[in-house]
Amino acid sequence: MKKIAIVLAGNGVFDGAEIQEATLTMYSIVKNGATYEIFAPNIEHHHVINHITGEEMSEKRNVLVEAARIARGKISDLAEFKASNFDALIFPGGFGVAKNLCSFAFDGIECTINSEVENAIKNMIELKKPIGALCIAPVLLAKILKNVELTIGQDKDTAQAINAMGSKHIDTTHGELVIDENYKIITTPCYMLDANISQIADGANNVVKTILNLCA
Amino acid sequence: MKKIAIVLAGNGVFDGAEIQEATLTMYSIVKNGATYEIFAPNIEHHHVINHITGEEMSEKRNVLVEAARIARGKISDLAEFKASNFDALIFPGGFGVAKNLCSFAFDGIECTINSEVENAIKNMIELKKPIGALCIAPVLLAKILKNVELTIGQDKDTAQAINAMGSKHIDTTHGELVIDENYKIITTPCYMLDANISQIADGANNVVKTILNLCA
Repeated sequence: MKKIAIVLAGNGVFDGAEIQEATLTMYSIVKNGATYEIFAPNIEHHHVINHITGEEMSEKRNVLVEAARIARGKISDLAEFKASNFDALIFPGGFGVAKNLCSFAFDGIECTINSEVENAIKNMIELKKPIGALCIAPVLLAKILKNVELTIGQDKDTAQAINAMGSKHIDTTHGELVIDENYKIITTPCYMLDANISQIADGANNVVKTILNLCA
Repeated sequence: MKKIAIVLAGNGVFDGAEIQEATLTMYSIVKNGATYEIFAPNIEHHHVINHITGEEMSEKRNVLVEAARIARGKISDLAEFKASNFDALIFPGGFGVAKNLCSFAFDGIECTINSEVENAIKNMIELKKPIGALCIAPVLLAKILKNVELTIGQDKDTAQAINAMGSKHIDTTHGELVIDENYKIITTPCYMLDANISQIADGANNVVKTILNLCA
């Protein structure tokens, strides 16, 4: 049975992992006959956002501890991730990817990447194993790699940033994929478009099915 | 288009709403051609549980604010719920149902129910509109109503409590439903059984499809 690692950036679209993208990725993996393990870095959230008002709350939360809510407690520190144990790696989206896993939300193309995230990606690439990235998560790959074809949908500023970091952005709509055959990287826009939850499920499922074909 | 209200008990299985059950209920509703609105009571979490260690954290969190993470900010105070605006009502599970929406986790059959939850249920019943309840959520219905046929799966203590409150528990396994034709109440065990996420999706989808048939 194929085993896919999922990396979560917390729990909640505005400061962590996009919950629906994360859950529907997990569902697609199991529905398609594979299994998953969940990882998150053991670091503090950049900040905590009240998801009703959009305002910052005067709290500290830990990315690994919060992501454990999505994972029902079955989660590992990303520091323990070993690429050799998995057939593929998937990053669901959410602002947490651009705030906790890297600093893209604040620093754009000058962003820094969490070292464990960078290692996980580089180790999978070395082993020629597929990586999926939903929503805003492709910026991680644009920053770490060069000349990779990616999509985050149709947002012009983010597409320009991806191109400026040395990769190639391709516009897509709901559920569509960009597949970089060279790196085995599969991306889809999800909530980077104005989408409903069924379109998110389609995007996640298309990524998972393509990944499972690639590592078959 | 049929419109279903979903009531969430927070965000996270051990002290709030079970995230996967909540998300997969939303997905099933949209996939089956209906739409949803999300509600939660504007009350404090009974407590906050670290989902890795299981230990209580010295924090306060608000059920409505935390549930907004699952809802991507599109959520209303349960105080504003009007049964006349909806075709059906669904309660996903999670310990938060038994800790925040009522006190079943602490008081068993002597539990009290949040008054807005009780009103929402009673108002739907008066209008003969269907109610779905996943996982532990059927205990709300057992406490408020009498002689209703319900399932929480196979947990003997909870089943006995449901019977002791004047309702009738029926054992079920993954994805199976108990349909109370009199009250139009549909229940399924979800994570009250040792389940995987695909089985949760089946249970949620079976509840949603049955509800949509009942309110057709």
